Amino acid sequence: MNNRIDLSKYNIRSDLIIDEVDDEKLLKAKKSKKDDVIVSSIELKENELEGKKKGTYITIEFTDITNYEDREKVGEVFTKELKKMLKKIKIEDNDECLIIGLGNEKSTADALGPNVVDKVLITRHLFELNTNHKEGLRSVSAFSPDVMGNTGIETSDIILSLVKEIKPKFIVIIDSLASSSINRLNKTIQMTDSGIHPGSGIGNYRKEISSDLLGIPVIAIGVPTVVNSAIIVRDTIDYLIKHISYLKNNYSKSKLTYTKIDDYKSKISDSNLTEEEKKEILGMIGELSDSETYQLITEVLDSINYNLIVTNTEIDFLINKLSEVIANSLNNSLHRQISHY
Amino acid sequence: MNNRIDLSKYNIRSDLIIDEVDDEKLLKAKKSKKDDVIVSSIELKENELEGKKKGTYITIEFTDITNYEDREKVGEVFTKELKKMLKKIKIEDNDECLIIGLGNEKSTADALGPNVVDKVLITRHLFELNTNHKEGLRSVSAFSPDVMGNTGIETSDIILSLVKEIKPKFIVIIDSLASSSINRLNKTIQMTDSGIHPGSGIGNYRKEISSDLLGIPVIAIGVPTVVNSAIIVRDTIDYLIKHISYLKNNYSKSKLTYTKIDDYKSKISDSNLTEEEKKEILGMIGELSDSETYQLITEVLDSINYNLIVTNTEIDFLINKLSEVIANSLNNSLHRQISHY
Amino acid sequence: MNNRIDLSKYNIRSDLIIDEVDDEKLLKAKKSKKDDVIVSSIELKENELEGKKKGTYITIEFTDITNYEDREKVGEVFTKELKKMLKKIKIEDNDECLIIGLGNEKSTADALGPNVVDKVLITRHLFELNTNHKEGLRSVSAFSPDVMGNTGIETSDIILSLVKEIKPKFIVIIDSLASSSINRLNKTIQMTDSGIHPGSGIGNYRKEISSDLLGIPVIAIGVPTVVNSAIIVRDTIDYLIKHISYLKNNYSKSKLTYTKIDDYKSKISDSNLTEEEKKEILGMIGELSDSETYQLITEVLDSINYNLIVTNTEIDFLINKLSEVIANSLNNSLHRQISHY
Amino acid sequence: MNNRIDLSKYNIRSDLIIDEVDDEKLLKAKKSKKDDVIVSSIELKENELEGKKKGTYITIEFTDITNYEDREKVGEVFTKELKKMLKKIKIEDNDECLIIGLGNEKSTADALGPNVVDKVLITRHLFELNTNHKEGLRSVSAFSPDVMGNTGIETSDIILSLVKEIKPKFIVIIDSLASSSINRLNKTIQMTDSGIHPGSGIGNYRKEISSDLLGIPVIAIGVPTVVNSAIIVRDTIDYLIKHISYLKNNYSKSKLTYTKIDDYKSKISDSNLTEEEKKEILGMIGELSDSETYQLITEVLDSINYNLIVTNTEIDFLINKLSEVIANSLNNSLHRQISHY
Repeated sequence: MNNRIDLSKYNIRSDLIIDEVDDEKLLKAKKSKKDDVIVSSIELKENELEGKKKGTYITIEFTDITNYEDREKVGEVFTKELKKMLKKIKIEDNDECLIIGLGNEKSTADALGPNVVDKVLITRHLFELNTNHKEGLRSVSAFSPDVMGNTGIETSDIILSLVKEIKPKFIVIIDSLASSSINRLNKTIQMTDSGIHPGSGIGNYRKEISSDLLGIPVIAIGVPTVVNSAIIVRDTIDYLIKHISYLKNNYSKSKLTYTKIDDYKSKISDSNLTEEEKKEILGMIGELSDSETYQLITEVLDSINYNLIVTNTEIDFLINKLSEVIANSLNNSLHRQISHY
Repeated sequence: MNNRIDLSKYNIRSDLIIDEVDDEKLLKAKKSKKDDVIVSSIELKENELEGKKKGTYITIEFTDITNYEDREKVGEVFTKELKKMLKKIKIEDNDECLIIGLGNEKSTADALGPNVVDKVLITRHLFELNTNHKEGLRSVSAFSPDVMGNTGIETSDIILSLVKEIKPKFIVIIDSLASSSINRLNKTIQMTDSGIHPGSGIGNYRKEISSDLLGIPVIAIGVPTVVNSAIIVRDTIDYLIKHISYLKNNYSKSKLTYTKIDDYKSKISDSNLTEEEKKEILGMIGELSDSETYQLITEVLDSINYNLIVTNTEIDFLINKLSEVIANSLNNSLHRQISHY
Repeated sequence: MNNRIDLSKYNIRSDLIIDEVDDEKLLKAKKSKKDDVIVSSIELKENELEGKKKGTYITIEFTDITNYEDREKVGEVFTKELKKMLKKIKIEDNDECLIIGLGNEKSTADALGPNVVDKVLITRHLFELNTNHKEGLRSVSAFSPDVMGNTGIETSDIILSLVKEIKPKFIVIIDSLASSSINRLNKTIQMTDSGIHPGSGIGNYRKEISSDLLGIPVIAIGVPTVVNSAIIVRDTIDYLIKHISYLKNNYSKSKLTYTKIDDYKSKISDSNLTEEEKKEILGMIGELSDSETYQLITEVLDSINYNLIVTNTEIDFLINKLSEVIANSLNNSLHRQISHY
Repeated sequence: MNNRIDLSKYNIRSDLIIDEVDDEKLLKAKKSKKDDVIVSSIELKENELEGKKKGTYITIEFTDITNYEDREKVGEVFTKELKKMLKKIKIEDNDECLIIGLGNEKSTADALGPNVVDKVLITRHLFELNTNHKEGLRSVSAFSPDVMGNTGIETSDIILSLVKEIKPKFIVIIDSLASSSINRLNKTIQMTDSGIHPGSGIGNYRKEISSDLLGIPVIAIGVPTVVNSAIIVRDTIDYLIKHISYLKNNYSKSKLTYTKIDDYKSKISDSNLTEEEKKEILGMIGELSDSETYQLITEVLDSINYNLIVTNTEIDFLINKLSEVIANSLNNSLHRQISHY
């Protein structure tokens, strides 16, 4: 196969650093777990990972945000991490904050940012109007710049002009991301102080939105809410191999009832086939690396215009709950007066 | 009455100049009529009318925007007036335009601006991306800055920063206005090149948004979509007097069937009572001038917190249709290629 | 005046019994007060009040539903009253309930019912599907029949057909009401076991929706969310008279600072003018009774088509909060397992 | 492979008959083409195709509903087919119609039905109220029964009860469907007189909604708006094989630029590999039939809970345009007076 199709070994871009860390096994992430919520912390140095800027990357993984108990746990963990991040980048209690909700409010899967902006506590006008209702509160403003297709204006230009005008001390940006694996879709929150990069997110911003551009600290919070079809296919082929491998190793040929196995998901993940076995099961495709498989699938789907970007059909409900968790955690972290957790 | 309550003779502020012209009878408006659509044009000089800046004020009055035929007529007339205004303020075919939708998208009566922004044709990114789909089109961007209660940021600051950044040649601002009479509610479009003034609109902007501030021509388009209770009461008392006057002049004491009279509305408007008759009907209230009555009502309602700002219950439907007419007229006026009318 | 215009003394229809009780002073309402929340309970006998069916009428009055603390108090009081009502009409813990949200979801002021339906806990399908998640829960279904203008079908026909099909033990109906005074707008919840009557509500249902029609107990819950202009005018004239009366009785002619008076609202309510004084202030209008004034205003406004039905401009926010309180109280009252209060 | 995993050869259920016809090649569909819009007509006899009821199945395929010109063409073709269908099932000009919008208005991808209901012309109340505005109009009512998860009530029970009550002469049902191939997603309208079947659509209705149940003719209109991940994977593997086959047949080993080939999509569809070649490329997977591959993928994805049902991220916009086309075609077909096409 390889000698017929020249697969230029390009990296699959991921908005989530955790995927690349898992894949490349080059970096070490500090992991901690509280109930079912897993927190990974990565400190990336300059040029350590191609296409990623240096900075702190926090990843929070969970199973079901629609469940009330899980949501409370995620909120608690996320609030704690947000407070740590604010401390780390030296934000003082009274430093003014501008929250930016990226994305398109009219397109459900891309509406995470605007939904968070709708739900956070806005206080800056109280300080401007000099009212008394601000004890224990930070000055917070928020804004949704919409997407270029709706405004005709480059998103980063809107943000830059606003930062120049109102001069906040730091920025928090919320965005819907493109997932690089099916098992993270709507199940991960990433937070980083490295900004939003060109080509990131659903909106495919052309210009960087970072501390370098804006001259102040930027905390970027993202949730993968869409995935393209090529990733679904690549991941499924991967699971398919693991599944068959698991069956081969654990059962006689006649035994087929595998669905009731406890913890099946983690068990099959540990299964590994030899190169020979992979080739037997998947032929030439089995010989390709993950990124080669992905590129091939992408080429095929792109050629016929079927590399759809898709989202979960429950996305309306999911965005509502995800934005609730993020807004609550922001309110709890930004204002001393508020302490739900 | 007057000797007991000192009514400081303040002017009732109106967002609509046509009301003040009708009231004060100081200014002459050029009026024209096409079917049931009335166009008034006023050229206001510096300091000619207190609280109003010099400029051209176009008022388009209609009866029912929910009716398809009426809507088409209003669109036609408004497009013509928009084109004349652009010519008058010397906007060239290729001058870049920024459309600003003032107001709160989440509050129906205040959502006219954001709804127009959603419906206008956006082309600026085509010019930026240098695509070919722009023959006969002007570069148009659009933006809804939301309201200070939601963002914490003064609306005029957002607009000013954006104008500095993207440098359009002129601006079109759309806003919901406060009506100064019940008979204009959702039945009038005002367009002026004099900008939006402090305390105008529903959002009560604290700073002027005008050519003086922004350094480029500003066309402001507004529709009165809300009215306060004091105006409803004052207008009703006024109609009550006219109604009784009409009855007195036209009928014997026993005759009471007045509802079937053709053109009743315009007939009662011509009726006038003597001061003596007014006093007989309304006592001391009848002795007050319009603005004294209004102030008294305002004082009473404000004291008990009932001076509600209200809107028509069909507002969801009305905003949809009003924004459609305005967006269509903007599309038709701004781009040579589009010529629905 | 009276000898010139024959005012047939029709009753002003009110969806709220409390208004008629206050006006007519014929009936005794048992009143209780918890913080600022006032509960009135009226037991109406057959034919006791024209246009009102016999039954229990509970009215809960509050000042500001947008305030969190007030909302909690209203919820607590309403839940208690709902439980008492269920007990009174002999609803057992396991009796199946059907909740009906009347009104038009697309028209904000009329969307209270559909908004409550969106927020209540639905359990009937769990019983139908025989799942285990139903301990301590009642079987509850809910439905929004929309309005005749949207469906072409009489609302009561939809409800009747559904009741025949799924055979619930009792029904709870939620509806937006027309207010009969400006001081109740969005500030009152009425609950009754007497059903919804023809001409009630915003939608002006033509047929009764009651126990008599449906053959099962019906609890109707309503909030006045709209008011017509004639009521605003009548109420204002009434307050105007009280205001002037108060000024006359409490101040020397020169003293005019009345706005800072504590508890002004209740103080002016106690002020009464003699017939002679009323005539002096308001002329012939001052001689009319409340209902005569209302009819005259209605006639004038109807003649010129300006008797607008209006709503508060904050209605989007108010409906959200009102539906939250009602849905929470229903969840707390209908299911043993849920006990927020 | 087959001897290790016993793939019970179940049929993949498709809501779209056209897929099964294409697959099975058992049935003949009459096809016609107008511009890029393809119409297929299938007359299915009793028991001819397992899981499908007898009846007429019309399938309209198009490429891009977001394009104005395409939308006009689809509307024209669909209106013509609707009129033919009405004639075929002997619906007279004055026969009363009830339109049912299945699905969940709050979940974008499932909201096609409710969106069509919002856009069709409702006239039944004009006939009931005996007004004069009905010349050339049919009596049409419309209703969205919502989904069982929201109401607690079986959808077919709501419809059945309503049909009993208002007794229409025929029913038109609109629903979002599950797509059985990636190339039909939001690109096909299916219309049939055979009703909606258990397990169809997104909502997975448990009971049939058909002429047999309701006793009157039922026209069901559906658009596939969601697809599950297993189908995406199966289709991609299929295209992958065709793609490699095409490359092998058309290019020397060194040549790799295939993306610029005109009409690539239809060219690769004609490519076929021998069983031997398929095995070489895809190993044991290559030996499986389409439905075996699909079952295997489904089993793997189901085991790990990743068989997501997904939709296009542009779904908000697509549903708006699809419902517009369907509502317009219904209005044009149902009322003599309306003749846009």
